[in-house]
Amino acid sequence: MQDFTYRNPTQICFGRGSIQQLDALVPKDAVVLLAYGGGSIKHNGVYDAVLRALGPRQVVEFGGIEPNPEFETCLCALEAVRANQVSFLLAVGGGSVLDAVKFIAAAAHFKDPEPWTILSRHAPVRSALPLGAVLTLPATGSESNGNAVISRRATSEKLYFGSEHVYPVFSILDPETTYSLPAKQVRNGIVDAFVHVHEQYLTYPDDAPLQDRLAESILQTLVEVGPSTLAAPREYGPRASFMWCATLALNGLIGAGVPEDWATHMIGHELTAFYGIDHAESLAVVLPGVWAVELEAKRAKLEQYGKRVFGIDGAEAAIGATERFFRSLDMPVRLADYGIDAEDAARKLQARFAERKDAFGERGAITPERTAEILRLRA
Amino acid sequence: MQDFTYRNPTQICFGRGSIQQLDALVPKDAVVLLAYGGGSIKHNGVYDAVLRALGPRQVVEFGGIEPNPEFETCLCALEAVRANQVSFLLAVGGGSVLDAVKFIAAAAHFKDPEPWTILSRHAPVRSALPLGAVLTLPATGSESNGNAVISRRATSEKLYFGSEHVYPVFSILDPETTYSLPAKQVRNGIVDAFVHVHEQYLTYPDDAPLQDRLAESILQTLVEVGPSTLAAPREYGPRASFMWCATLALNGLIGAGVPEDWATHMIGHELTAFYGIDHAESLAVVLPGVWAVELEAKRAKLEQYGKRVFGIDGAEAAIGATERFFRSLDMPVRLADYGIDAEDAARKLQARFAERKDAFGERGAITPERTAEILRLRA
Repeated sequence: MQDFTYRNPTQICFGRGSIQQLDALVPKDAVVLLAYGGGSIKHNGVYDAVLRALGPRQVVEFGGIEPNPEFETCLCALEAVRANQVSFLLAVGGGSVLDAVKFIAAAAHFKDPEPWTILSRHAPVRSALPLGAVLTLPATGSESNGNAVISRRATSEKLYFGSEHVYPVFSILDPETTYSLPAKQVRNGIVDAFVHVHEQYLTYPDDAPLQDRLAESILQTLVEVGPSTLAAPREYGPRASFMWCATLALNGLIGAGVPEDWATHMIGHELTAFYGIDHAESLAVVLPGVWAVELEAKRAKLEQYGKRVFGIDGAEAAIGATERFFRSLDMPVRLADYGIDAEDAARKLQARFAERKDAFGERGAITPERTAEILRLRA
Repeated sequence: MQDFTYRNPTQICFGRGSIQQLDALVPKDAVVLLAYGGGSIKHNGVYDAVLRALGPRQVVEFGGIEPNPEFETCLCALEAVRANQVSFLLAVGGGSVLDAVKFIAAAAHFKDPEPWTILSRHAPVRSALPLGAVLTLPATGSESNGNAVISRRATSEKLYFGSEHVYPVFSILDPETTYSLPAKQVRNGIVDAFVHVHEQYLTYPDDAPLQDRLAESILQTLVEVGPSTLAAPREYGPRASFMWCATLALNGLIGAGVPEDWATHMIGHELTAFYGIDHAESLAVVLPGVWAVELEAKRAKLEQYGKRVFGIDGAEAAIGATERFFRSLDMPVRLADYGIDAEDAARKLQARFAERKDAFGERGAITPERTAEILRLRA
C-alpha cells in the first residue's frame, strides 16, 4: 500500500425529498447563484423545489451551462457573480454544471487576470467561493470531490484542475429527481462511474486488498444495477444504488493508497475535444484499448477483475466481458460507431500529446505513440 | 436503501513517517494538550517523534488515560486544559485516549456545570475544542468519527455520546508505530473492527447492494490479514491493511443508508462495566449469541455473509465460522473463559436494561429478557 492523505468534507444528503434540506444548508443571508444547464430542471420539478427551499434568499439565475462546460460560459457566470455580489454558488444539474461552478468559485477568488491559467498551467487555487450542489445526473462524482474539467472549443482543449477549496460544502442526492433522465444519459453515467473505478483499480497489484475489494464492490454493483435501472428508470432501489455508486467511484476513497492510471480519461478528453462525442462514449471506446496495449503490465489485475466481478478466467476474457457489459447498456465501443476515422484520431492525438510531452498510465507507459496504437486498435 | 446524511471531515494522513506532518497540521500558535495512555509511546519512539514534530509549540502533557477511559480522569485533564489555556488537543494512542480527548474537547466548551449529562442524558454538544490524533492502536475507528465511550467505575457505567464537533481535524496513521503492540491488543483490534462492521451489516436485506459489498470487503480483508498480521507483526502490508480496515469499519460510510444493530455493543459495554473484560472480548462473546436468538430475523443476511465472506452455506454455519475465526485469533468466545457466571450476568444485565427501559437491535427485538437469554447461551 502506498502512503496517502485522504479528506473529503462534503456533506451528502441522500434520499427522497432531500432538496428541502437546502434551507438548512445554505446561509440565510446568502446571495445565491443558481447555476443550471439546458433547463430540464424547469420541467421535472427540481427548479421549483429548489426555489421553494431557498425561500426569501436573493437568487441570481444562470442557466445554459453546456455539457463539457465552456470556459467562455464560466466567464459570463463570473460577471454575474461579481455584478450581484454573489456569496454562495448552487449547482443544480450534473457533472458539467458542477464542474463549471467549481471553476467559477475558484476564478471568483483568483488574483491573476487570466483564470485560464488555473487549467492550462495549474496555477494554485488558494481560496474559492463556497458551493453546494443538487445533483440530478449520477455520473461524474463531481458532487463529492475537488476536481473539474473545463473545455475551450475555440482551441479544442479540455483541461482539468483540482483544489481542496472547491469541494462542495454539501451535495443533495435525491434519486427521484433522476427518473426523467433520457436513457442515454443514464447509460453514460453508468459507464462514466465504471471507468472512474477502473482508473483507480485496474493497474497492478500493490498489496492493497481492501482498496481492491472496495473498487470491486462498486463494479459488481454497477454490473448488477446498471441494466436494471436502465430498464426500470422509476424504480427507486436500483437508481439509488447507481447514484451512490457514482459518488463513491470518485470521492477519493478507492484511490487512497493505490496506483492510478487515468490514461483512458486523458485520451477520452481529447476525443471529446476533437470530435464532440460524449465523455462516457469516449471512455467506453478507449478503455479496452488501453488494456489491450498494457495487457502484460495489467494482466494480474485484469485476471483478478474478471474472476471477482464477472466470474470468468483470463485477462483477455475480462476485456471481452467489459465490452459486452458496455454494449448491454447500448453503449458503442468502437470509433467507427461514431464515424470517426481511427487513423485521423491517432495522428491528431499523437501530435497533441507529443507537443505537451504527455505520457499517461500508472507507470507512464502510455506515450503519444502508444496512444496512436490504442486508437488504431479501436477503429 | 434508507435516506441518509453522511459527512466525515477528518483528514487521514496514512503511511510511514506520517507523524512528521504534525507540524503542518497543528496551528503554529497552539497550546497543545498531549494526551496519552499508559506510557508505551515513551518506549516505542512515538512520543519523541511527536515532540520533535511539534517543535517550539507549548505542550502540556497528560498521561495515564486508562483503557475504558474514566470520567474522573477526563475531569483531571479538563483542569489541565483550563489552567493552561490549552487550544488544541492531541490524542496519541488508541481508541481510549481518543475517546477521552473527545469528551474533554466537548466538556471544555460545555456550559452546564455537570458534563456527565453529555453521557447520561445526551445533553447537546454545541461546540468543542479542536482535536487531532496520532493513532497507535488500530481498533475502534474513533480516529475518524464523532463518537466516544466513557466509563464511571464508581457506578459500573459505560456510556457513549456523539457529536459532529468532536471529529478529529486530522488523524495520523503510521502502521509502523503499531509494530510493538502486544498480540492481545492486535487481536482485540481485529475483533473490534470486525464486529463494528457487523453492527452495520448483519441485520436484514434492505436493497443496499453497494453498502453490503463495502461491508463484506472489510470483513473479507480482516479474515485475510488478521491472522497474518498477528503472526508477522512487523510486516508492513498486512498491518497497513488491518489499520485501514479498522478506520473504515466505523467512519460512517458503511452504515450510511442501511439499518444498524448495535445490540452486541450495548450488551458488551455492560459486561465490561460489570466484569472488567476488554471491550473486544465482550463483543466476541456476545455477537454469536445475538445472532442465535435472532436467527430467523437475520437468516437472509447470515446466509449472504457466510457465502460471500467464508464461502459456506447456511446461517448456522456462518455463526460457526465466525466463532472459529475469533478462536483462530486466540480470542475466547464464552463467558466461562473469563470465569463469569452466565446466570449472574444474565440477572445483572436484565435488571439494568429493564431499569433504563432499553431495547436494542435493528428492530428493537433485543429486550432485557432476550439479553438474559443471550448471556445464558454464551455460558
